[in-house]
Amino acid sequence: MRMYEIIEKKRDGLELNLDEIEFFITEYCNNNVPDYQAAALLMAIFLRGMNERETADLTNVMANSGDRINLSSIPGIKVDKHSTGGVGDKTTLILAPIVAACGIPVAKMSGRGLGHTGGTIDKLESIPGFKTSLSTDQFIDNVKSIGISIAGQTGNLAPADKKIYALRDVTATVNNISLIASSIMSKKLASGADRIVLDVKTGSGAFMKTFKDSVKLAKAMVKIGHNTGRKTVAVVTDMDIPLGCAVGNSLEIIEAIDTLKNNGPLDLRDVSFELAARMLELSGIGNLEECRKKVADAVLSGRALSKFAELIENQGGNKEVISNYALFPQPVYKMSYICEKPGYIHSMKTDKIGMASLVLGAGRETKDSKIDYSAGIMLNKKTGDRVETGDCIAVLYTNREEALSQAVSLLNEAIVISEEPHDKKPLILAYIDSEGNIKN
Amino acid sequence: MRMYEIIEKKRDGLELNLDEIEFFITEYCNNNVPDYQAAALLMAIFLRGMNERETADLTNVMANSGDRINLSSIPGIKVDKHSTGGVGDKTTLILAPIVAACGIPVAKMSGRGLGHTGGTIDKLESIPGFKTSLSTDQFIDNVKSIGISIAGQTGNLAPADKKIYALRDVTATVNNISLIASSIMSKKLASGADRIVLDVKTGSGAFMKTFKDSVKLAKAMVKIGHNTGRKTVAVVTDMDIPLGCAVGNSLEIIEAIDTLKNNGPLDLRDVSFELAARMLELSGIGNLEECRKKVADAVLSGRALSKFAELIENQGGNKEVISNYALFPQPVYKMSYICEKPGYIHSMKTDKIGMASLVLGAGRETKDSKIDYSAGIMLNKKTGDRVETGDCIAVLYTNREEALSQAVSLLNEAIVISEEPHDKKPLILAYIDSEGNIKN
Repeated sequence: MRMYEIIEKKRDGLELNLDEIEFFITEYCNNNVPDYQAAALLMAIFLRGMNERETADLTNVMANSGDRINLSSIPGIKVDKHSTGGVGDKTTLILAPIVAACGIPVAKMSGRGLGHTGGTIDKLESIPGFKTSLSTDQFIDNVKSIGISIAGQTGNLAPADKKIYALRDVTATVNNISLIASSIMSKKLASGADRIVLDVKTGSGAFMKTFKDSVKLAKAMVKIGHNTGRKTVAVVTDMDIPLGCAVGNSLEIIEAIDTLKNNGPLDLRDVSFELAARMLELSGIGNLEECRKKVADAVLSGRALSKFAELIENQGGNKEVISNYALFPQPVYKMSYICEKPGYIHSMKTDKIGMASLVLGAGRETKDSKIDYSAGIMLNKKTGDRVETGDCIAVLYTNREEALSQAVSLLNEAIVISEEPHDKKPLILAYIDSEGNIKN
Repeated sequence: MRMYEIIEKKRDGLELNLDEIEFFITEYCNNNVPDYQAAALLMAIFLRGMNERETADLTNVMANSGDRINLSSIPGIKVDKHSTGGVGDKTTLILAPIVAACGIPVAKMSGRGLGHTGGTIDKLESIPGFKTSLSTDQFIDNVKSIGISIAGQTGNLAPADKKIYALRDVTATVNNISLIASSIMSKKLASGADRIVLDVKTGSGAFMKTFKDSVKLAKAMVKIGHNTGRKTVAVVTDMDIPLGCAVGNSLEIIEAIDTLKNNGPLDLRDVSFELAARMLELSGIGNLEECRKKVADAVLSGRALSKFAELIENQGGNKEVISNYALFPQPVYKMSYICEKPGYIHSMKTDKIGMASLVLGAGRETKDSKIDYSAGIMLNKKTGDRVETGDCIAVLYTNREEALSQAVSLLNEAIVISEEPHDKKPLILAYIDSEGNIKN
């Protein structure tokens, strides 16, 4: 088999078989196929597409390119959740303790973030003492003993995806549904979960800007799950507005705790509860209505909050943070972002709010950047809200005084105020069942 | 400007502007753009295409990437001719002295061959003493003094094309009309001619296998000429059969001399005379009929042959070869290829005949191979001819005894004999005028 002929075949719009996909991935990872041939093939895939079978094969081959976590020693069905990412998205921190409190094991491996805030792992590390670097054995033992563990990726998961993603990133071949879907799902397969709930974000703060593309991506991933024997469903949720009010690492932990106390923002509660209910439903413990009730009970009874405290303690963190937010790192500067004209918030360019949070220190600009856990933005007003001159729309948190003016400029660009009120949009836009059927 | 955005633009089917094409070529040649980004762009160009304007710009930019020969000190209109290459194609050796004998300056730079026989330069070097390595000044001086010079490429012509062609060759992006056309024409522009006649070959022995693709390529090149201010016309000629009877270096020189003596094969005479007439027409010295008459006169009067002798002498060669073919290098082995069943030659897989000639030593397998000037094949019979058992269809010439059996096998595959006679096809299939209009 020769790489040249594989490129030629896809260039001409033909279907690649498993052997050809395997040859490409294996030989590229072994440095026997040069970057320029891989780049030519990726562009041909981008423009000619891959069918469901090719996409599933690519995913499987990439998942097999490194370690695969074996969760079979943990009794029960392991359900994972994955979000395509957005601004203020801290649902994992809420739904993971809820699901564990309902008796379903949560073995959650999570990544670090590159962008406007850290990832789940970074956010958890803003809790004093919390450890996220666990061995695979420790991680599995934790789940066995208290029903939940959230850790950074251990081992070498889907290294082929890493290598290919790096090449796509510099050859304008990222934004293709099959390639995005196989990239995400290869890591999920390698992480060992039996079933997967996907939260596909859509809108100005999401990777997928339009509802149509988000549904396409959701369907593609659900079908990969179907074709690789991992039952997968997807919820498409709005990211045209930050989720909740907090953007930043410790700020988001605090908001998650508030939500587990049933005292958080309603939008965040609704999305987190829905995803938790879908996870429970997928685990087979009841129908959707029953699962929604279980979720609400777990929160209202305080069991979900207790489970979060247990998680913190079990991974070396100070669980006192739950009742004393002053134990989180505090920033030197807190600055109010004031409304300069009356009206209604018409829209928020959510990516720009994310950018402002990054500028304040909450995220990583490069892989080596250090995150400021205390930095971020608290939004007091959101899309659809009435605002008057002098109102505090948001508070900026940072240790970088020089960053404040840039962050303010970004918020000026992000927040559009109009004279007319604006209808709030629904948050949960669609559900894709495990066969790939959409339900709005 | 960033290479990433250029790739993205072409990926999305948009038109690249001159600055973007210039950025790509310049930065790639300066090693500031990595191979993988160039490969991604080339695949995007392959699949999305380039319009006439982009193709002309790409050609111009590649032509400007190295030296450009300046022929302006030679009085008159300089007309170049380029063939896309085929088996037994020695028309340059015939038409160049004809055109020069008609008073039109011939400043012909030619390449060495990689393939079944050498290029024009290699063929000329089979004449004892003939020098093809000339300085640009010497080359121009020769044209000024005797009206003709044929030399190997001096200087560094279109290095960008060389670098890009090498990458296309390993990324399955060779076979695209815009890329092929710009590659050929960039070298023609750099070579300095004012006007260009293209001989686009079509059929089993040509790069373009179908008439349709050959016409497309011809039109694309003519349009590049039009858009870069070099009036260009094209003749599409048949290469489903070797041109003439000789395939090999000194064998082809001898056949060219025979043709200048008006004693050569008719097919070779017809194509060479037609191309010469088109060159004269393009130089503006008369209409096509007048030019055809000038060509015939130049040959029948002996002036073209004298011009060829003058060329040989002026470049250090022994002009006695014209009357004494024994002065050419002679091979050790001459073997007859005998007909084994009676019938008619139905077809000749011309690429396989070329391959047989390569095996015998007439061509280069790699850039470093040494050519055997005496090696090659003389065809006594061609497509359409009646053959009887025992007839000598061809004679093989070589110094490699061990190559003979392989060459015979190739000829067995190449030459198809049928019971029914087969109509001979016309040789000159189409003419594309300088506006890109086709005339069959």
